[in-house]
Amino acid sequence: MARRIVVIGGGAAGASAAAKARRHDEEADIVLLNEGRDISYGACGIPYWISGVIPSIGALMVFSPRRFGARYNVSVRNFTRVREIKAEQKKVIVEHVREHEVYQLSYDSLIICTGARPVLPDVFRVEGPIFALRNLVDAEKLKSFLKEYTPQSALVVGAGLIGLEMTENLQKIGVKVTLLEATDQVLPSLDLEMASIVHAALKRSGTAVLTGQAARVVEVKAPDRVVVTTSKGETIETNLIVVSVGVEPNSELCESAGLKYGPRRTIFTERDMSTGVEGIWAAGDCTHSWSAVTGQPLWLPLGSVANKQGRTAGANAVGQALKLSPMVGSTIAKVMDLTVAKVGLSQKEAESAGMKVICSYTHPFDRAHYYPGAEMLSVKLIAEESTGAIVGAQIIGREGVDKRADVFAMAIYNRMTCDELGNVDLHYAPPFAPAKDVCNVAAYVADDIRRGLERVVAPQEVDQDFVSRSDQVLIDVRTPEEYQMGHIPGAINVPLDVLREQSDSLDRRKRIVLYCKTGLRSYLALRILANKGFEDVWHIGGGYVSWEESFGG
Amino acid sequence: MARRIVVIGGGAAGASAAAKARRHDEEADIVLLNEGRDISYGACGIPYWISGVIPSIGALMVFSPRRFGARYNVSVRNFTRVREIKAEQKKVIVEHVREHEVYQLSYDSLIICTGARPVLPDVFRVEGPIFALRNLVDAEKLKSFLKEYTPQSALVVGAGLIGLEMTENLQKIGVKVTLLEATDQVLPSLDLEMASIVHAALKRSGTAVLTGQAARVVEVKAPDRVVVTTSKGETIETNLIVVSVGVEPNSELCESAGLKYGPRRTIFTERDMSTGVEGIWAAGDCTHSWSAVTGQPLWLPLGSVANKQGRTAGANAVGQALKLSPMVGSTIAKVMDLTVAKVGLSQKEAESAGMKVICSYTHPFDRAHYYPGAEMLSVKLIAEESTGAIVGAQIIGREGVDKRADVFAMAIYNRMTCDELGNVDLHYAPPFAPAKDVCNVAAYVADDIRRGLERVVAPQEVDQDFVSRSDQVLIDVRTPEEYQMGHIPGAINVPLDVLREQSDSLDRRKRIVLYCKTGLRSYLALRILANKGFEDVWHIGGGYVSWEESFGG
Repeated sequence: MARRIVVIGGGAAGASAAAKARRHDEEADIVLLNEGRDISYGACGIPYWISGVIPSIGALMVFSPRRFGARYNVSVRNFTRVREIKAEQKKVIVEHVREHEVYQLSYDSLIICTGARPVLPDVFRVEGPIFALRNLVDAEKLKSFLKEYTPQSALVVGAGLIGLEMTENLQKIGVKVTLLEATDQVLPSLDLEMASIVHAALKRSGTAVLTGQAARVVEVKAPDRVVVTTSKGETIETNLIVVSVGVEPNSELCESAGLKYGPRRTIFTERDMSTGVEGIWAAGDCTHSWSAVTGQPLWLPLGSVANKQGRTAGANAVGQALKLSPMVGSTIAKVMDLTVAKVGLSQKEAESAGMKVICSYTHPFDRAHYYPGAEMLSVKLIAEESTGAIVGAQIIGREGVDKRADVFAMAIYNRMTCDELGNVDLHYAPPFAPAKDVCNVAAYVADDIRRGLERVVAPQEVDQDFVSRSDQVLIDVRTPEEYQMGHIPGAINVPLDVLREQSDSLDRRKRIVLYCKTGLRSYLALRILANKGFEDVWHIGGGYVSWEESFGG
Repeated sequence: MARRIVVIGGGAAGASAAAKARRHDEEADIVLLNEGRDISYGACGIPYWISGVIPSIGALMVFSPRRFGARYNVSVRNFTRVREIKAEQKKVIVEHVREHEVYQLSYDSLIICTGARPVLPDVFRVEGPIFALRNLVDAEKLKSFLKEYTPQSALVVGAGLIGLEMTENLQKIGVKVTLLEATDQVLPSLDLEMASIVHAALKRSGTAVLTGQAARVVEVKAPDRVVVTTSKGETIETNLIVVSVGVEPNSELCESAGLKYGPRRTIFTERDMSTGVEGIWAAGDCTHSWSAVTGQPLWLPLGSVANKQGRTAGANAVGQALKLSPMVGSTIAKVMDLTVAKVGLSQKEAESAGMKVICSYTHPFDRAHYYPGAEMLSVKLIAEESTGAIVGAQIIGREGVDKRADVFAMAIYNRMTCDELGNVDLHYAPPFAPAKDVCNVAAYVADDIRRGLERVVAPQEVDQDFVSRSDQVLIDVRTPEEYQMGHIPGAINVPLDVLREQSDSLDRRKRIVLYCKTGLRSYLALRILANKGFEDVWHIGGGYVSWEESFGG
């Protein structure tokens, strides 16, 4: 008799699992139990449908349940949830959530793809114009609200990638957004000085950004009027609230099935997506992956990862032997006129994992500097000091960010050192890259730091206390014109091209801290002085640009 | 006494070498002997300056010789060439090409960065409006000609990347271009079926493309009128000729110095850019690199490679110990509305190197299919059959080509298998990529082919002979609507979603060849039939799109 594969959940992971299982086994009886109305939909497109950038919600429905069922010969049961897994009997207790019919379904292989749900703090659990977007039905509710009330203002709670995508898309349709973030920065997964670039862009776009405070009181005054009081006592009156403070895994079935928990209460899985209980696999946002950097379990609730997990689980559930690759944790979003990407570990994440790291800050042009449209990127590369292995990167800019982020992802996946990445002959032609590509440059600089060829002061350390120290000399090596346009307080101006002549006049007993616009000229200046025997010479990573970015320029 | 470093040549390699040497050694006496007027210029930008896309030639001059000299404390001597290297005495015989002054210069380290020159076949060695672009002076001559004669037509000889860039940029300023290529295809470094896509784009843009023929007679009738007769007897009357049939290394100094030749008469160098003769290094287009794929010496006359070679040679010339990384051979160009990239080996190159390879043809969207502007790319991925290691890729499309090309470059550099690349979590958000990225998909398909999960007929094999074979059934699994819009001659239509029901009516004794639009649905169809016990089922790689591309659709 044909084996029965039961897949719980019709999102990216569930649909991938069912389709992959079918591609290996034409005879299997595959049943997909789907709690909602839609399957395999493009949830990541929701913010763009809200603004009309994507005109039709139909575009987000990759497959209707019927078409998916026909294509893969899968029995798709909508509005159906699993109450309990009887692992020893290899049965699930199933409930039709509309008709409240309850029945048992036996399986040979069970793949749990229950996904994740938005976290909704208690303060927001009130009747009113408060939206947390999980699926297309939630999106439709928000869209209806926008149509009915044409709101002027919105409060977006949570300044992660999704929160910022929502902010951008609400503003696109004329809704003024206040962004409320409990931590001290937007994009908490980034290091503060990189997040500051995005913070500034949000402010430029007219977003009111409130960090370091959470909603304490939420009072619904009317169907389209809410007043929120924050932990710092600020009051925000708004027409609607979108809550995007993160997600949590739908892992409640663990208990009944006797499954173990992984990190963040995900369902624990091995590299083949098996759960440790005979016949049960898990995939997607309800389970974790493994970090390519640390080797540890890592929760990455992302569509791209879910697909890969689903494919792996689906293959293994029909007797194949696939293993999930380690994940580098690539994340990216368009935020206003910027693209923001982060991959691997941030500096703070690496340091809390006990790693000693070095960081390069660079601002290379995205294409040949002379080619129309060339613009500077902001790149922070993080490498392990002892080995030089690249462990993380953050990139912000307008164009060409996604490319560099993927190159860094590949470098991290392959455990490349800065030295190696510096020398890969990436594609060069003037419309696409400088002859020394952005990734090469970021890696070269990191490698130089590691080898002691340059000593770097992180830009965010150059605060008022720093510049007022009397035991050091702060030197701006840009041209007099650049210096006059604006410089770091306390800096004297010694242009690079006269530094050789003037070096004798510098006090060798003091620490010398150099900077230029982006860090290139100050590096050359540093090498001149170091080669002349100055022993305590530093420069500011990323230069004046990074310093301005760090302090909200 | 300070050592003297003599660098011959002020292009990308020479300038990089001098600058790197200086960064390590402040005291060295660095002399840069430059045959021309400009140094360290953006030669790759020339086609774009010709059209005015880059408005000022000054933009291509990264450094004036004077500024470079000041910045790096390098004695730059322009219009200076080296007649001879007296390696045993560590001296060069130098000539000022304008003043014909000849003198000796001793060195401790000598770095040869003489670059390459355009090949100019004898037939073009006549007085007249015939241009071969090597440097900014050549570019200025062409620009003056364009201004003086406002030509209507041009003949571009050689359909490599530079020839196509020149074609595009000449057409941009209203010059009608005829492209003459001696081999049977444009972009000879690509496989024919991929080059066909570019061929079609050139034709669409109004370029007359003549392949498989070379110029036999060149008659200059007037300062702006030339008549060319080709080896096939065609006559082309044109206002000017741009010759871009490739470059050859300036390696004549090898003889006098007793240096060995590498491939293509380059100067042979080891991995540290040393030449085998004490105190002599070489870098840039006059020398070769080492292939990351084959491990063999490989000539890559590219600015991005020259920079890396120069940096390595410059460091080693002052006592550092750098090694040049193996190169993957990334090439890319904008051609009309397309971007064309090739990295690693083509199929034909791999096969002539004795490799057995498998190829995947895919047409994934560059971003989420529902995000505005999403367009299909054409991707050919080449992997070694025995190991699954990726050895080459070719990508053509409008946007997002350079990104995928760099990801493939990283995969090749790291000797990744298709299986590995398929599973890297590259950056996903709807504006940037589909959830299964282009590179993942190309690698998945190649991996499936390698594992025997799908058997692929290369699209270019589906010619008239193929479709008229009586021992096979050609099945179009698209919808009836798609089939009626156009299909491969001889194909019957069995839409994927009814294939399961209708499979019993297929003749199991015949070979079955399936296709759809891009290869995805036909792959699913193949899996259905294979799982139902059909033993001889194939599908056409890249589907109808690749078939149309291969046959010049």
